[in-house]
Amino acid sequence: MPTPWYQESITDESEILSSRVRLARNIKKYPFRKTITPVGALTMVTEATQAIESAGENRFFLKIDMNTLNQTEQAVFQEKHIVSPEFISGKLPKGLMLSRDENISVMLNEEDHVRIQAIKPGEGLSLAYETAGQIDDLLEEHLEFAFSAEYGYLTACPTNTGTGLRASYMLHLPCLSKTVDLSKTVLPQLTKVGVTLRGIHGEGTSSMGNIFQISNQNTLGKSETDIILGLQNVTHTVIQKEQQARENILSTNRSQIEDIVYRAYGILTNSRMISASEALDLLSDIRLGYITGLLAQPKPAKQIYQIMMEIQPGHLQRTAGTEMSEQERDIKRSEYLRQIFM
Amino acid sequence: MPTPWYQESITDESEILSSRVRLARNIKKYPFRKTITPVGALTMVTEATQAIESAGENRFFLKIDMNTLNQTEQAVFQEKHIVSPEFISGKLPKGLMLSRDENISVMLNEEDHVRIQAIKPGEGLSLAYETAGQIDDLLEEHLEFAFSAEYGYLTACPTNTGTGLRASYMLHLPCLSKTVDLSKTVLPQLTKVGVTLRGIHGEGTSSMGNIFQISNQNTLGKSETDIILGLQNVTHTVIQKEQQARENILSTNRSQIEDIVYRAYGILTNSRMISASEALDLLSDIRLGYITGLLAQPKPAKQIYQIMMEIQPGHLQRTAGTEMSEQERDIKRSEYLRQIFM
Repeated sequence: MPTPWYQESITDESEILSSRVRLARNIKKYPFRKTITPVGALTMVTEATQAIESAGENRFFLKIDMNTLNQTEQAVFQEKHIVSPEFISGKLPKGLMLSRDENISVMLNEEDHVRIQAIKPGEGLSLAYETAGQIDDLLEEHLEFAFSAEYGYLTACPTNTGTGLRASYMLHLPCLSKTVDLSKTVLPQLTKVGVTLRGIHGEGTSSMGNIFQISNQNTLGKSETDIILGLQNVTHTVIQKEQQARENILSTNRSQIEDIVYRAYGILTNSRMISASEALDLLSDIRLGYITGLLAQPKPAKQIYQIMMEIQPGHLQRTAGTEMSEQERDIKRSEYLRQIFM
Repeated sequence: MPTPWYQESITDESEILSSRVRLARNIKKYPFRKTITPVGALTMVTEATQAIESAGENRFFLKIDMNTLNQTEQAVFQEKHIVSPEFISGKLPKGLMLSRDENISVMLNEEDHVRIQAIKPGEGLSLAYETAGQIDDLLEEHLEFAFSAEYGYLTACPTNTGTGLRASYMLHLPCLSKTVDLSKTVLPQLTKVGVTLRGIHGEGTSSMGNIFQISNQNTLGKSETDIILGLQNVTHTVIQKEQQARENILSTNRSQIEDIVYRAYGILTNSRMISASEALDLLSDIRLGYITGLLAQPKPAKQIYQIMMEIQPGHLQRTAGTEMSEQERDIKRSEYLRQIFM
């Protein structure tokens, strides 16, 4: 079985941690999210599930029954970016088809009837688009999607109408974050070209661990290829800014950065309780230490980005096999991190 | 040669780091500090120096010429509490006689003509008083001190008149500092019984490293023995409060304290630049770790209190053999601390 994207061995020095493509589709014969009834939703989910199964794709896909998942399991899916917080909180019947390698997911009855998502490690946006497109084609053989010759794919929220495509990168920008206020300097420039930058968990969330999600805002009036290319170009510019900031810091504040990086190492290898938010920031500093070569300690066997995922509440509780209070998690998290880095 | 008090091996678990006694005396035939001329001061300093020398005490005492000391050497004396900041900044002729083991110093022309000081490691207040008294007796054989039958020894500032005795302990109060505001809870109670509590460098300085100097405020109307006993009793109460606070913390917040202690260890063994103030606070946490047994790491060969002294600017620069900028000191301090604890 292929490894999940978050375990794949990428160069751990890239600013791009992962690439993701999401396609929003709705099935023509069902009302959209706001007006669909519970019974309608259930029928729709069943039909879409069968579309995947009848194409023989259940060889690759697991049907996940969201209702039988406990809170911890749901949180794990969310922390892996396999499902959205909105999908988890949604009360209407819903379905999740997940590829066995966890790199492709199809959320049924999230904001739209069908949301196809493909994630690849590092810079794999074209590949992710190709993968999502294959699932899209497969579903279209069995389902008629709401489509307008004038607008393209119709969606529950007009911001997704057209291609229904949201392409995004997860970026690690430790030096830019330390030197400028991204929301005031970089973000306005991106907005002008239809691209946005958000915290690790998407809209309305703040950045943690200096990780940002960069994605296209516009889905209408551009071809899929143009959207992908546009995002790649803009991301390239942001990465150049990050690298420039890194060079500046290293040439003018080398001691300070060395200090930051080693303190992060000292705390992660010694703390006895640590919040997810602090741990993410320290892991970001450690990753910067490896990228710059400032941190001489041997690297752990896992990608820092994978560790960042595994210290989150759902993952921690799944590993422990039990639900835990916040303080219990903080203690468990510190144990896990000491074990990883010692 | 006896070891200096700060290198003596005391139980590193006592709240009392050192004991100090200071006697303020003035020579009758010279005007007090405010009115003495530079020539008068020089004559006075010379006469007092000769009094020590003529008693043959130059076997034990070094005559230190303050004018030939550079800033670093002066700072070292101050950091060791051998001289006061006021003594260093004083512009009039002054003299310093220092016992070869550095445990006794006589400042000539500080606020008073003669200030005899004896320091002992740990709880050694009676011993320090005895030692200072011996020097006092010795000087009185050759000098006539200003003395009033009604008031006792006369001093430049009336707060020292009477016994001229200031007895003090240097206390490490990490748990009390973490749990209460000492200036609002403990200090008012002490003031009522004529005792005060100050930061590490005396009046007007803030506490660093949770180290406090507790001393008698009143010098008049009580015998020397009563002052010493009174301070010992009050200090005993403060220590009980500290121990109570420690027990409370350990029984209710053990994980947090363990975390604090280990983080301090992690930062001290990894930082690449560190201020004196931060280092003192972390050393305080590490000392707490040893006292409570929470910190399992092997103890360094030196007392934490000695390390606290050696990371201060004067000591650092003397060790390096050169004056250094603040940033250079912060880097050097982190190197020194890593070396001590690794």
